[in-house]
Amino acid sequence: MINTAKAEDDIHELMDSWQKAVQAKDIDGIVSHYALDILAFDAISQLQFKGVDAYRNHWEACVSMCPAGEMVFEIDDLKIAAADDTAFSHCLNWCGVKDENGKDNACWMRVTTCYHKLNGKWKVVHEHFSVLFAVESGKALFDLEP
Amino acid sequence: MINTAKAEDDIHELMDSWQKAVQAKDIDGIVSHYALDILAFDAISQLQFKGVDAYRNHWEACVSMCPAGEMVFEIDDLKIAAADDTAFSHCLNWCGVKDENGKDNACWMRVTTCYHKLNGKWKVVHEHFSVLFAVESGKALFDLEP
Repeated sequence: MINTAKAEDDIHELMDSWQKAVQAKDIDGIVSHYALDILAFDAISQLQFKGVDAYRNHWEACVSMCPAGEMVFEIDDLKIAAADDTAFSHCLNWCGVKDENGKDNACWMRVTTCYHKLNGKWKVVHEHFSVLFAVESGKALFDLEP
Repeated sequence: MINTAKAEDDIHELMDSWQKAVQAKDIDGIVSHYALDILAFDAISQLQFKGVDAYRNHWEACVSMCPAGEMVFEIDDLKIAAADDTAFSHCLNWCGVKDENGKDNACWMRVTTCYHKLNGKWKVVHEHFSVLFAVESGKALFDLEP
């Protein structure tokens, strides 16, 4: 029988490590958490990304959009559930960049992440990032609070 | 040991039943698939919905936005993974309404769903719907193809 608490701790560590890699704009570090056949839904650019190479290219494009300033990437309200070799989590994500005055130019996103344990190591097999939009204007909403 | 194929079949059935309920605008039917403490990220209105009552109210608002015409709600590219009492799935979702000429007024959304087996029955504990947006205009993108 799996030790669920241990699995959830391991996934917590994976998320911490992934978050630090994003904050450091470390593409190799980010991608090291993903399974080769990851299927990702991001908030921009394409409906879906199939496979780690396509998703890596997308992360490179995203990071290159960020000005020289510091990346803002905070995880809030993270909930993890794990059983055997399968797990999922969801969280809110304060995502953006610091402006020249050190102020966050960021918005709240939503992230759902799904995992498999592959060769004894948890890997992300699915990731879903999004912001929501206003029905009236069709505009993405960047100013919402949890 | 869990029968994974059986669990995945059960979740397939759950998704079929949920899809039919949405197509029929049957709010009780939709909500019957959700756990009491569901945490949902939808594409509109609020950053998150906590609990089945809040999410039910949101589904009622969504359904009331649809004109008298037929609801369009198709599931494509559904992938399910299950282990023990925990599972997840992701799919593309062709979502909208039929116009007066019978033409789909719809767009491709992305859906991630997470499940727990509670008292012997699979229930949705997390649902994440989204469309993506254009970085330049900040506008939601309704015309993308998979």
